[in-house]
Amino acid sequence: MRKGRITIPTDENFVEGTKRIADLWGADAVRDCDGTHLPKNALEIADKVYNTYFVVRGDNAWADNHTDELQSVLLMTGYCLATEETLVIDLLKGYSHDQLGVNEENPKKYWQVFDRTTGEEITTWEYIGGGQVRVEKAKPYHEYTVNFFAKNLWDSTQMYNYITNNWNIEKHKVMDTRFPATFEHIKENMRKWCDENKNVNVVRYTTFLYHFFLVFNEINKEKHVDWFGYPMTASPRAFDDFEKEYGYTLKAEDIVAQGTYQNNFVNPTKKFRDYMEFTEKYVTKTVRELVDIVHAEGKEAMMFLGDSWIGTEPYGEYFKDLNLDAIVGSVGGGVTVRMLSDMPNVKYREGRFLPYFFPDTFFDGNEENAIAELNRNWITARRAMMRNPLDRIGFGGYLELASKFPRFIERASELCDEFRYIYDTVKTQTPKNFAKVAILNAWGKKRSWMGHMVAHELWYQQVYSYQGVYEALSGMPVDVQFINFDDVKDGKLSEFDVVINVGDANTAWSGGDNWTDEKVLTEVRKFVHNGGGFIGVGEPTAYSANGKFFQLSDVLGVEQERGFTLSEDKYNITANGKHFILDGVQTPVDYGEDKKNIYALDGANIMDISLSDRFVRKVNVGEVKMATNAYGKGRSFYITGLPYSANNAKLLYRAILWTAGKEDMDKKSYCENPLTEAHFYGDRYAVINNTDKEQTTIFYDINGKAQTLMLNAYEIKWL
Amino acid sequence: MRKGRITIPTDENFVEGTKRIADLWGADAVRDCDGTHLPKNALEIADKVYNTYFVVRGDNAWADNHTDELQSVLLMTGYCLATEETLVIDLLKGYSHDQLGVNEENPKKYWQVFDRTTGEEITTWEYIGGGQVRVEKAKPYHEYTVNFFAKNLWDSTQMYNYITNNWNIEKHKVMDTRFPATFEHIKENMRKWCDENKNVNVVRYTTFLYHFFLVFNEINKEKHVDWFGYPMTASPRAFDDFEKEYGYTLKAEDIVAQGTYQNNFVNPTKKFRDYMEFTEKYVTKTVRELVDIVHAEGKEAMMFLGDSWIGTEPYGEYFKDLNLDAIVGSVGGGVTVRMLSDMPNVKYREGRFLPYFFPDTFFDGNEENAIAELNRNWITARRAMMRNPLDRIGFGGYLELASKFPRFIERASELCDEFRYIYDTVKTQTPKNFAKVAILNAWGKKRSWMGHMVAHELWYQQVYSYQGVYEALSGMPVDVQFINFDDVKDGKLSEFDVVINVGDANTAWSGGDNWTDEKVLTEVRKFVHNGGGFIGVGEPTAYSANGKFFQLSDVLGVEQERGFTLSEDKYNITANGKHFILDGVQTPVDYGEDKKNIYALDGANIMDISLSDRFVRKVNVGEVKMATNAYGKGRSFYITGLPYSANNAKLLYRAILWTAGKEDMDKKSYCENPLTEAHFYGDRYAVINNTDKEQTTIFYDINGKAQTLMLNAYEIKWL
Repeated sequence: MRKGRITIPTDENFVEGTKRIADLWGADAVRDCDGTHLPKNALEIADKVYNTYFVVRGDNAWADNHTDELQSVLLMTGYCLATEETLVIDLLKGYSHDQLGVNEENPKKYWQVFDRTTGEEITTWEYIGGGQVRVEKAKPYHEYTVNFFAKNLWDSTQMYNYITNNWNIEKHKVMDTRFPATFEHIKENMRKWCDENKNVNVVRYTTFLYHFFLVFNEINKEKHVDWFGYPMTASPRAFDDFEKEYGYTLKAEDIVAQGTYQNNFVNPTKKFRDYMEFTEKYVTKTVRELVDIVHAEGKEAMMFLGDSWIGTEPYGEYFKDLNLDAIVGSVGGGVTVRMLSDMPNVKYREGRFLPYFFPDTFFDGNEENAIAELNRNWITARRAMMRNPLDRIGFGGYLELASKFPRFIERASELCDEFRYIYDTVKTQTPKNFAKVAILNAWGKKRSWMGHMVAHELWYQQVYSYQGVYEALSGMPVDVQFINFDDVKDGKLSEFDVVINVGDANTAWSGGDNWTDEKVLTEVRKFVHNGGGFIGVGEPTAYSANGKFFQLSDVLGVEQERGFTLSEDKYNITANGKHFILDGVQTPVDYGEDKKNIYALDGANIMDISLSDRFVRKVNVGEVKMATNAYGKGRSFYITGLPYSANNAKLLYRAILWTAGKEDMDKKSYCENPLTEAHFYGDRYAVINNTDKEQTTIFYDINGKAQTLMLNAYEIKWL
Repeated sequence: MRKGRITIPTDENFVEGTKRIADLWGADAVRDCDGTHLPKNALEIADKVYNTYFVVRGDNAWADNHTDELQSVLLMTGYCLATEETLVIDLLKGYSHDQLGVNEENPKKYWQVFDRTTGEEITTWEYIGGGQVRVEKAKPYHEYTVNFFAKNLWDSTQMYNYITNNWNIEKHKVMDTRFPATFEHIKENMRKWCDENKNVNVVRYTTFLYHFFLVFNEINKEKHVDWFGYPMTASPRAFDDFEKEYGYTLKAEDIVAQGTYQNNFVNPTKKFRDYMEFTEKYVTKTVRELVDIVHAEGKEAMMFLGDSWIGTEPYGEYFKDLNLDAIVGSVGGGVTVRMLSDMPNVKYREGRFLPYFFPDTFFDGNEENAIAELNRNWITARRAMMRNPLDRIGFGGYLELASKFPRFIERASELCDEFRYIYDTVKTQTPKNFAKVAILNAWGKKRSWMGHMVAHELWYQQVYSYQGVYEALSGMPVDVQFINFDDVKDGKLSEFDVVINVGDANTAWSGGDNWTDEKVLTEVRKFVHNGGGFIGVGEPTAYSANGKFFQLSDVLGVEQERGFTLSEDKYNITANGKHFILDGVQTPVDYGEDKKNIYALDGANIMDISLSDRFVRKVNVGEVKMATNAYGKGRSFYITGLPYSANNAKLLYRAILWTAGKEDMDKKSYCENPLTEAHFYGDRYAVINNTDKEQTTIFYDINGKAQTLMLNAYEIKWL
């Protein structure tokens, strides 16, 4: 057992206990937590002492004296139906009046009113005060919306916690650093805080400048949540500055975008990309001044990838200029581990693991459940750690509560050791990758491991069948990179064995109208024709144009019947379930939400097809679920959906090997039992059991030599 | 028992038997059939004697002497991938060489080559003979197609029968009346035939000029079938004539339309509408000359709505100019009855019922099955007859075979009487309609009762969930009309109680981009807001624009989640299964192919929602299956799909009453048991049992007075 790379929560009332557990777990860092205070002598307990810090929220004394310098939020009203020629629109209808007020600054300059029935902006409107816009010359039975700026009266995260926990404390207002007086004040606060907190050597920025888009409705329930959304960065000042910097006027609609607010699922427009870059540069430059203050005091600066991270874009071009020491985020599974552990330009990356040491889990008699949650969280995250581990792991909550569960403390201690062993192995050896895989979408590198996310880690029925691809890849012995369509056009495909395109039609994930760019089509076809692999999940390459829906139906060997080609007889309707890809994979495969109306083109090889039990003809029947296709020297694989499961991870791995033409890499450093996985580090193997039960598997070494292994629940066998 | 309105097949070898059965059934017409010949004295057996007649096919002696005057077919090759700068495309690859040859007339004038990767027409190609086009300066990894004219070497229907029945007879070539010599010859044939067939007084035109689009593949299996398709009307002559008549050049692509050939599911373009009109005018004018010959001979002209009906468009503007006496078509169910019985501008409409008297059904020991098929066909058709009956019914095949099944003869005799009684009742009384319903799609009246049809009456997985709406309506006590978007803009909605929009997004059935026409949106909204009803099935009003997918989501109260609004929290997720519409309707409802990702807007009333068993949150979950909404004074109903069943017919009827605001019409001339239905004719009621089993139902008269009725299998009770 060794020491280091572990962060634990502490409290001024639990100093001795902290020391004992720090010793057991080898913890070298302590942190504060909601409702706790760091001991004064915290640096005597640990090498690193983290303290949370809010940059823009909670200084209500200042806020109340500078009400014009509050942050803004760019919002759209609901669609309002005109039934006569005059229509009065209540701007904040449906929005929380506790959180939001109307920013009345120069409406005619910054706001917009749209006829959403024609799509045209109209000018026959006035702000009549009292939060209302009056539209004149409205066309009856057209719908209208107003894009307007609101004031941010209550920090979204505090509001969420406040409501969830029935708090009754002061509501944090949110200041805008674009006002020089406010920014000077914030810097002054930062300096003062450093002076007053000599016992802290890591400033853990819970917030930087801008919260992700999170607004509440008129009864203070969550209304709109987008962990990637930029509407809370927008303000009249930002728009003015943008115009100066980019030479053109940004309009509210460039961000509102018909109420989608250019969320992650929407193909980013050129203007929105400009606005993101503009915001990134501003956030970077502004926060850097605070980081410099912190560094000057000999402290480290750590960013929490959580509340107010918008504009930092850790995979973007400007993040490095923040000069941060560390990033920390919560860990739900393999994807969130890799999202953190692959981030460049910080010295270390830390993951906050579950469970929190809070009374909802740590109550009398619940120790086994707490341990089970710890194990569950660990084994989902561990798959990804085997490929690229976090630099540190940690916990949150009240350590004293955890200390009452001795078996929990012991199990956590084992995991801390296991983590350090994994870390030392993976970081000193070279994990063997069997293929180079590109995930191709409209965001590329900037949204590495962030695909199909809406609210941080929340399950949505519409996305889990695609997120499974990323989760499977996060712990797979392949090199994964995220690329966009510009990368394709720049010839980057030649660096990869396999390209994967995942998602619903018209989303940024599948790519939408990027698939009408002949350069993109040409590059991908050439890549596959010359021997590359292509994997499509859901509605890959889908965009209705030129007689096709799947623009690369020729590569994929499948198309979607949308009613326009029913007249064309389909004879390729028989599945052949025997395939390299399915070797050792349990069937039927779980396709998650699945896709309907997929049919195979002539020549494609159907691996699974579903037949309606309503009627069976000998032609034009069945819906393809999985198919492969040969295209020149290359190969493709299609599947309707791939939710995460051990079985589907194995399926995807085999599909990668097959489409890459690497069948000779089959059963090298490989487990037959899909609930177990093997990793090869040059001088050793790790064979891991991803379950809470004993597992037996045939394990093949890198030369294909087989042996049968028995693994205890959760075990890693190092060979 | 009375006489008339019945047509039976006969044969020169079965004259006495024909007389006996004609007497039993009250048949007043006889017809010939494949493989039979009319008796010479046929007019002594029946008032009407039908004989089949082919206008353009089968005169091979003429065809072989006028090989340049064969009909053409407009075709597109498959998508061909270029891998270098030269690409040779084999035009007939994938097409039957027995059916089709290349029409080499002036390729540079009439053909087109497209780069289907960019959508651009290219000119760097030559026809190099031998059925091949060579493309130069092709862009590697682009796909190319050729639109070209083929020659029609073999009539499609004859080819189908030939292959299906392993015939070995002469293959009928198909002539083009646009060549004057050929047309004169055809008229001469017609005159000669009339002279030679004095024993015939009804010319049953099996073919007019142009076959529906039916081509075969390289192994003579059906390749493309579109019962509404126009490619077999197209030819260099037609294109030349079009240019003279319409003042602009028609291009092959105007019909080929990226390989969709502007089928029924594709929104008709202006040019295609022009071309249809052009063809209708030509077919009408040309066939009229033949009809006039027939009339001059004192015979009637009857059109078979089957093989070569393209360009007649019985619901179009020019059909009346054909001056036809009658139309005959096959009957599969209520929709095909109404398609025939609602047709205007003929003196009588006849339906051919099942089973055919062929050896596949009429073999020893199969009498009960034959009777069951007769009953099944009858009760599905009868529903529609209760609203608007055909003027005549008939059978086909070898009467002698049927005569060997005495119970079949007896049952058919009963049905002939039942038919005559229905006919006399419905045609002399006024069937009570409880609402006026418009089906709104891009075709409107022209495709009355033809919605969602591909090949005549064939089942397709993608359409039955929508065809069920028409089938249900065909026998429902409501007035049904089919309208298009121009009708909406012309203010026609005011004539109706309820508008129904049915189908998949972007198809001509739901309407596609017609829903971006602000006049359409305004008219429909106004109609509903002022008290009208709106029913949407599947993806009604769907077109992605202006932040909406269902353009009338405000009316419908539901939208489809396509990934762009996942950030918006959805709280309206609880179903209330109690509703007027569901009173007496069995649940769960059968939605057929169903639709995923439908969610309810605030204020809508969910009647059914499905919850994923994967994960249940308290927000953003569930997929709505049925919902109602209030909109001004009006109402809407949404359902994901409505395949035909007795239960779904009842559901739709109740939805019509409810959206029309006619709850007071509930349980008036109405049956509780959905397997039975009531019709009111002013002086009497018909209560029908649509099943082969005894049924008990509570029946309500027009004043709502209830009584319990017991109905035998198939029975109609006249009250």
